[in-house]
Amino acid sequence: MKVGIEMLRDVARRAIARQGYEAADTEIILEIIMYAQLRGNNQNVIKLLGPGMPANPEAGQIGVAKETKLSALLDGGWNQGMVVMSRSCEIAIKKAKEHGFGIVGTRRTNSPTGAIGYYGRWIADEGLLGFVFSGSPELMAVYGSYEAFLGTNPLAIGIPTAGKPIVLDMATAAIAWYGIHLANAEGKKIPEGVAYDRDGQFTTDPGQALAGAIKAFGGFKGAALALIVEILTRPLVGATRDDDGRKTDWGNLIFAIDPELLAENLESFQAGVSDLLDRVKGLKRLPGVDEIPIPGERGDNYFDGVMAAGEIEIDEKVWRELDAVASG
Amino acid sequence: MKVGIEMLRDVARRAIARQGYEAADTEIILEIIMYAQLRGNNQNVIKLLGPGMPANPEAGQIGVAKETKLSALLDGGWNQGMVVMSRSCEIAIKKAKEHGFGIVGTRRTNSPTGAIGYYGRWIADEGLLGFVFSGSPELMAVYGSYEAFLGTNPLAIGIPTAGKPIVLDMATAAIAWYGIHLANAEGKKIPEGVAYDRDGQFTTDPGQALAGAIKAFGGFKGAALALIVEILTRPLVGATRDDDGRKTDWGNLIFAIDPELLAENLESFQAGVSDLLDRVKGLKRLPGVDEIPIPGERGDNYFDGVMAAGEIEIDEKVWRELDAVASG
Repeated sequence: MKVGIEMLRDVARRAIARQGYEAADTEIILEIIMYAQLRGNNQNVIKLLGPGMPANPEAGQIGVAKETKLSALLDGGWNQGMVVMSRSCEIAIKKAKEHGFGIVGTRRTNSPTGAIGYYGRWIADEGLLGFVFSGSPELMAVYGSYEAFLGTNPLAIGIPTAGKPIVLDMATAAIAWYGIHLANAEGKKIPEGVAYDRDGQFTTDPGQALAGAIKAFGGFKGAALALIVEILTRPLVGATRDDDGRKTDWGNLIFAIDPELLAENLESFQAGVSDLLDRVKGLKRLPGVDEIPIPGERGDNYFDGVMAAGEIEIDEKVWRELDAVASG
Repeated sequence: MKVGIEMLRDVARRAIARQGYEAADTEIILEIIMYAQLRGNNQNVIKLLGPGMPANPEAGQIGVAKETKLSALLDGGWNQGMVVMSRSCEIAIKKAKEHGFGIVGTRRTNSPTGAIGYYGRWIADEGLLGFVFSGSPELMAVYGSYEAFLGTNPLAIGIPTAGKPIVLDMATAAIAWYGIHLANAEGKKIPEGVAYDRDGQFTTDPGQALAGAIKAFGGFKGAALALIVEILTRPLVGATRDDDGRKTDWGNLIFAIDPELLAENLESFQAGVSDLLDRVKGLKRLPGVDEIPIPGERGDNYFDGVMAAGEIEIDEKVWRELDAVASG
């Protein structure tokens, strides 16, 4: 079914507030959920259904555990991840604008962090190079193992151009955890070679995969990058484990680099990137490829289509459930 | 055949000097070539054979095109890539130690840059997180294309631990350009699905692949990372093209981050990373896996074996040719 964007936004806002968030936090979460929804990203209003993402009753203030001219380590105080990540972005951007570089780590946030391309894009929109790394619970195997140990460890990179920014937003996993869950709920199979069962056999059964582990993307190289993200979001920011070694906390890291540290100025850098993208668009294409894709572009096109229509396609069941959550 | 390490070093030194490098540059290049040789990396003395890597007669001084507290943009003055990269490392480390972050871009270097893990390891050995990105000529296709446009765009990441550093050193290509060249010289086939011929068909013929394009690793995600490396090593550092749009210059980027910006101190960070690696080593292993591999470890083990023996296995033909180059 089709729903007007403002109507969806209003219902989503009420659904978030119902989960125990105060007004300011609700607006931050709403913006990030709607970003995903309006770009065809699955970190969307579905997050508000079922168990949802209730506010942590133990949440306190967001604290600054350590700060230097270039850096801040935030103690999330078990506030919602998107709220803490937004604060991190603001600080990283401010420091990068003042000094050329800003880096912010977080720990003790209440998951989830939503579509992390949002933060990469935000930094790029400010004329900076944005790098975002996000930790998560034990879901993915390291190379050579079949035991869930790493998070799906997504990363996002935002790059300013003369037009819309480049936004790469990718899990370092071969398949999104959410994709496995969805297949499980719908009784479908998952692709071959992306997940292990608990005995280390590849499985296409999503239930078995959820009891086992996801594989990293791209062989040893992808798995190595996943391990690097684990380091950036755990020991670097002081994320903790319980006495059994299970993660009790998963951290995040954001850094922003001013391109004017190296490029003549922002405009020349943006023009240079756009020139490169123009060349990319003009390259010979493989059969069946209508246009060479640029990271972030598919979401931008989806967004443009939705905004032109003023309404968005949404599953009727999702809409009914969302409305029920919003109405309490 | 086996050759003593010091004998190999001596012959390699003379082979480098014969290519037109002055003594100080020769020592820098020697160290990086020997690093690769002693770690079983293919960026080794083979680089000195055949066309070799002659000094550029137009080389001048390495200049500083732009500098801030945190950054420097080096004009390589067509000096050898390894020499300019070493200078970059020194500057990035110095700035990161003073301010917490240091970033150095280079342009107008004379290829090659050698095993870039060398620079990542160097930075990690100084107690910093090292990130290295290296541009190269038109060899690899962007996602959706079969035209050689990107470099093989390697990246290296160095992370200090309580023991030996983690050193990830990887091309974002599905196969190293050198691997294709070697297969071509030896009349062997390359694996399926890693390279296109000039008409966009996958080929296992290395000659056809050299006339075509290499594929990026890891599907859209790997190709997207390759594109990001292209941006970091071209528009960001002002690398140039000729009137036909061909690259006449391929840049490099290094940055170093002090973990103490976020972690309590270097020692606690190193201990945290080593604890994580200990856990990784203890995970359940897939059949046939004796030990979970950590990036950089294979090279370390090779190095330890060579140093214990005091000599290294080298192809007899390579040794004879190297000796001939050294003797002029």
